[in-house]
Amino acid sequence: MKLNDRGLLVVISGPSGVGKGTVRRALFEMPNHNLTYSVSMTTRQMRPGEVDGKDYYFVSEEEFKKNIAEGKMLEYAKFVGNYYGTPKDKIEEDLDSGKEVVLEIEVEGATQVKAQMPDCVMIFIAPPSKEALYERLKKRGTDSDKTIQERIDKADREFECAKNYDYIVVNDEVSNAADRIMAIIRAEHAKTKRTLHSYIELLNEK
Amino acid sequence: MKLNDRGLLVVISGPSGVGKGTVRRALFEMPNHNLTYSVSMTTRQMRPGEVDGKDYYFVSEEEFKKNIAEGKMLEYAKFVGNYYGTPKDKIEEDLDSGKEVVLEIEVEGATQVKAQMPDCVMIFIAPPSKEALYERLKKRGTDSDKTIQERIDKADREFECAKNYDYIVVNDEVSNAADRIMAIIRAEHAKTKRTLHSYIELLNEK
Repeated sequence: MKLNDRGLLVVISGPSGVGKGTVRRALFEMPNHNLTYSVSMTTRQMRPGEVDGKDYYFVSEEEFKKNIAEGKMLEYAKFVGNYYGTPKDKIEEDLDSGKEVVLEIEVEGATQVKAQMPDCVMIFIAPPSKEALYERLKKRGTDSDKTIQERIDKADREFECAKNYDYIVVNDEVSNAADRIMAIIRAEHAKTKRTLHSYIELLNEK
Repeated sequence: MKLNDRGLLVVISGPSGVGKGTVRRALFEMPNHNLTYSVSMTTRQMRPGEVDGKDYYFVSEEEFKKNIAEGKMLEYAKFVGNYYGTPKDKIEEDLDSGKEVVLEIEVEGATQVKAQMPDCVMIFIAPPSKEALYERLKKRGTDSDKTIQERIDKADREFECAKNYDYIVVNDEVSNAADRIMAIIRAEHAKTKRTLHSYIELLNEK
């Protein structure tokens, strides 16, 4: 018996290069889950193979800004000239239908989500060590030393944000990290703050 | 990788008759756990088949009171003329060695444990409905109507305590309840309040 029927908003975040996407995909490959992934909105160009409404909602800058103005974005940010963000409507609908909605987003966006939906479950994906993450950032693409240093500096700032999260999950093995996240989701459903209301109702039923 | 090596103190409690003992035993039958059960101390007579140091530590009232006076009891209470309680020393030792220490205790004792060890994980086992619990209490032994009513009144007071717990786990199916408790233990190990310290150490390692 699940005491509460509403789904959880699960925010998976962490420093760039830590493997958030890989962990999220492993999570979705697990059996018997009721997870749904929130598709982001972006103004960047669609790349070959991408599907509108699946990989992203591809919109014009004008439309994106209209969504911001109307308070329809749960979080958004501008990277390299393009907007990226999370539309709110679909999320509420999915949560109400009992699905766990997973967001895989940057640290900056995660802070915005927590402010708007304080009931969300904030999970920080951490690397096994700082060095391991630096190595991954250095190997990415063929960037200049300056770009690499900027990335490392950004990761260092992002590390500091871990303290604002509910959970820290080390991405040592992707399957372990996914297992831990699944345990967190189950445990969160049993949290007194989420269940007390329906528990009291249950007690008063005949 | 486990960020924190110290075990958790897991308090399993709930109203009399809810099946705490059955859930606890199912938990210990699960594979791959690192749980240990804290043996209680009592002044009541040993029953046939019981083993000292396994079922209980059987001691005299004088010895029990000495333990209380020396601050060696994590919690204790007197039921029907006998003392029952949890000795502290062994628990600290087990937690330091990384074991999860499980206490299966009455609601009154659980409150004492929380006060002394606020880091513990408090789990309230709830019945699928009030009626289901009343039925169980009525069927127990061959008690008088007065005794049964006293038990029901006690259960009603105990229901109210659920709000002081971290989690509410409904004992609908014993194996489900045990599964949920195991998920709670895994999740609690990833809690930022428990992991942040070792996470920071990890970041500063070369």
